[in-house]
Amino acid sequence: MVNKTLLTKRVTFSASHRYWNKNWSEKKNVEVFGKCTSPHGHGHNYVLETTVEGEIDPETGMIINLYDLKPIIVDALKDFDHKYLNEDNLSFKDLIPTTENIAKVLWEVISNNLDKNKSCKLHRIRLYETPEVYVDYWRGS
Amino acid sequence: MVNKTLLTKRVTFSASHRYWNKNWSEKKNVEVFGKCTSPHGHGHNYVLETTVEGEIDPETGMIINLYDLKPIIVDALKDFDHKYLNEDNLSFKDLIPTTENIAKVLWEVISNNLDKNKSCKLHRIRLYETPEVYVDYWRGS
Amino acid sequence: MVNKTLLTKRVTFSASHRYWNKNWSEKKNVEVFGKCTSPHGHGHNYVLETTVEGEIDPETGMIINLYDLKPIIVDALKDFDHKYLNEDNLSFKDLIPTTENIAKVLWEVISNNLDKNKSCKLHRIRLYETPEVYVDYWRGS
Amino acid sequence: MVNKTLLTKRVTFSASHRYWNKNWSEKKNVEVFGKCTSPHGHGHNYVLETTVEGEIDPETGMIINLYDLKPIIVDALKDFDHKYLNEDNLSFKDLIPTTENIAKVLWEVISNNLDKNKSCKLHRIRLYETPEVYVDYWRGS
Amino acid sequence: MVNKTLLTKRVTFSASHRYWNKNWSEKKNVEVFGKCTSPHGHGHNYVLETTVEGEIDPETGMIINLYDLKPIIVDALKDFDHKYLNEDNLSFKDLIPTTENIAKVLWEVISNNLDKNKSCKLHRIRLYETPEVYVDYWRGS
Amino acid sequence: MVNKTLLTKRVTFSASHRYWNKNWSEKKNVEVFGKCTSPHGHGHNYVLETTVEGEIDPETGMIINLYDLKPIIVDALKDFDHKYLNEDNLSFKDLIPTTENIAKVLWEVISNNLDKNKSCKLHRIRLYETPEVYVDYWRGS
Repeated sequence: MVNKTLLTKRVTFSASHRYWNKNWSEKKNVEVFGKCTSPHGHGHNYVLETTVEGEIDPETGMIINLYDLKPIIVDALKDFDHKYLNEDNLSFKDLIPTTENIAKVLWEVISNNLDKNKSCKLHRIRLYETPEVYVDYWRGS
Repeated sequence: MVNKTLLTKRVTFSASHRYWNKNWSEKKNVEVFGKCTSPHGHGHNYVLETTVEGEIDPETGMIINLYDLKPIIVDALKDFDHKYLNEDNLSFKDLIPTTENIAKVLWEVISNNLDKNKSCKLHRIRLYETPEVYVDYWRGS
Repeated sequence: MVNKTLLTKRVTFSASHRYWNKNWSEKKNVEVFGKCTSPHGHGHNYVLETTVEGEIDPETGMIINLYDLKPIIVDALKDFDHKYLNEDNLSFKDLIPTTENIAKVLWEVISNNLDKNKSCKLHRIRLYETPEVYVDYWRGS
Repeated sequence: MVNKTLLTKRVTFSASHRYWNKNWSEKKNVEVFGKCTSPHGHGHNYVLETTVEGEIDPETGMIINLYDLKPIIVDALKDFDHKYLNEDNLSFKDLIPTTENIAKVLWEVISNNLDKNKSCKLHRIRLYETPEVYVDYWRGS
Repeated sequence: MVNKTLLTKRVTFSASHRYWNKNWSEKKNVEVFGKCTSPHGHGHNYVLETTVEGEIDPETGMIINLYDLKPIIVDALKDFDHKYLNEDNLSFKDLIPTTENIAKVLWEVISNNLDKNKSCKLHRIRLYETPEVYVDYWRGS
Repeated sequence: MVNKTLLTKRVTFSASHRYWNKNWSEKKNVEVFGKCTSPHGHGHNYVLETTVEGEIDPETGMIINLYDLKPIIVDALKDFDHKYLNEDNLSFKDLIPTTENIAKVLWEVISNNLDKNKSCKLHRIRLYETPEVYVDYWRGS
């Protein structure tokens, strides 16, 4: 008999992006990406859900204190919030900033920072581009 | 070490339905289904979440292009949206159109159509009847 | 110097309806109302906001007690909730059950019932057909 | 005794923008606008509520048919949706694309187009930059 | 021809309260207030919408900078957020902390602080106790 | 090939709580729990999602009838709704009422009551303290 406890913190950030594959013609880019190829980008209020798993500490009643988790998330977002991802975030120098790829990059940044915290580990990243589209990303053994 | 990426698209449709078991008396129908037996039906704004899983295509940064996924979903809903399910949808000729059964039928329709698409497969159907009630349905090996 | 206090209570109900003008040909009905003419109707989770205005009673700190307001609203909805409005609600015998007309009928029913309550009067009816479409209706001198 | 009926349609669009006053030093821009001065912009899922007022047409039960209203709104958004407002929309050549100014420009575009429609007139524009910040704009005699 | 521009900022705070009229018997309190008389209180995530009106400053494109408005609201909430209103907030020493009364007190605190700001004035306070119940409060000449 | 069907019912309750470890000094409590140590507590509109799994009954089209599930949930909440958890709920006599611990206690109460119902079993408890923070809790073999 096992039990599982997960804690999820939701934060919002504002960013803009452009879908463009440098190895393709403009014609092919427009065929595949449509209006998402608009040359100076467009933007979203992204909603990021960071889910961690761990044991409930009997002294605090918590997996991790939100006062500890929130700064890790905010720090991870410093190259995302109020940025044009294609120009302002090095992770997207050669990677198209789709919701899938942003979620994957955020997994890497946040799981690295959480690793230094012994009490819990990253369980899942969920990223909403709009209230109608979201991506889940996780890694496990 | 494995990783998993899921993409979810949410769409809304309006339908009406009636709960009625033909093999039962009216008395038993009312006892079990209450006001959901109202003779001409009643309706909902259903919210359907279609979740697919697959690899991120390095050329597009996507599991599946939403321009490809959305028509599959819209096509699957052609006998659901703006319909009275008991009368207008053949799937519910002998099946009560509960949230559970609608989710199951939508799994069948959408997974069939996605199978023709090689890049990804259906992971889960989530169907909200109201913001307070939803059903998850999936099949796997 | 005047002040104004309004109290709004939101409730949800499920109903189905059909748009059909008896004096028009089928062709004209379809031209004007599109898929809303589906013969057996379709449905929505309507959200009704009832807003009342009045003075704050110094003894209760309230314009009206929600224990008094809620039964008035629920009673007004008895021919709407879990109903097919075209068939089950006499108000729509000769009136197309659009959001505008439903809001107007609900104003009449609720304002009549509130009149018997001396402490406050109806200020506005807001009716959401979906989260994306709503109607406001009120009358005043 | 007068009555009033309003119809509101909500649509979403994705855009990016930058706050920058050309007549100010960089230092003053950063002092006033903070991270909104990020050089390549950042973005939002804007939610636009268009509210119209008019009489309920007894033949349709509507102030205006949504099939007529929606194209007017979509057309008004063609230089907003999936655009970087500072570069792609001429209205913001010399106007900072704040929520206030975007709402004002949208009032002008939509009220002009609605004027050709005799049945109703624009009552109010509400524009959400995020779910936490919105602007209302209207003009009247 | 006049125009009007309003800006609304929404913030959340967590508080608890108890409905109890000291001049009434316990019996009457329970009759009127029901489970809201629970002796140690109960709580809500209140959502406060602060709406200001003013002219759009041509230099900033804003009625008021959110960097200026937000601290005024946060400061006004210092005796509300994470408090038991009956015990921790002097305004409710002799005033029942209903949604109506909390909205009225917040109008007084915030309008006083905004008066020192020349650019805009308070237009309306909207306070949600839950997503289903809210109060609007304003004063005007 | 297996299939899985889950049904989730969402209900809201209002409660207040205080974070305080009796074995710690006041200084340490404030360091760890910050404003959540406010002496008389503070409150939330908690949203509880109860998810059950089971087979779809061919006679009803349901895993469990909501008319049967809802009373089980409401009954489980009788010591939570409109309560100050630290004082009014015996489960928190020696347990800090964090979101993690409340979710765990609700799992125990609801899974016990569901066990008497043969048709389905508890799959997961999800508890939102605010729209931005939630905990998932489940047990399995």
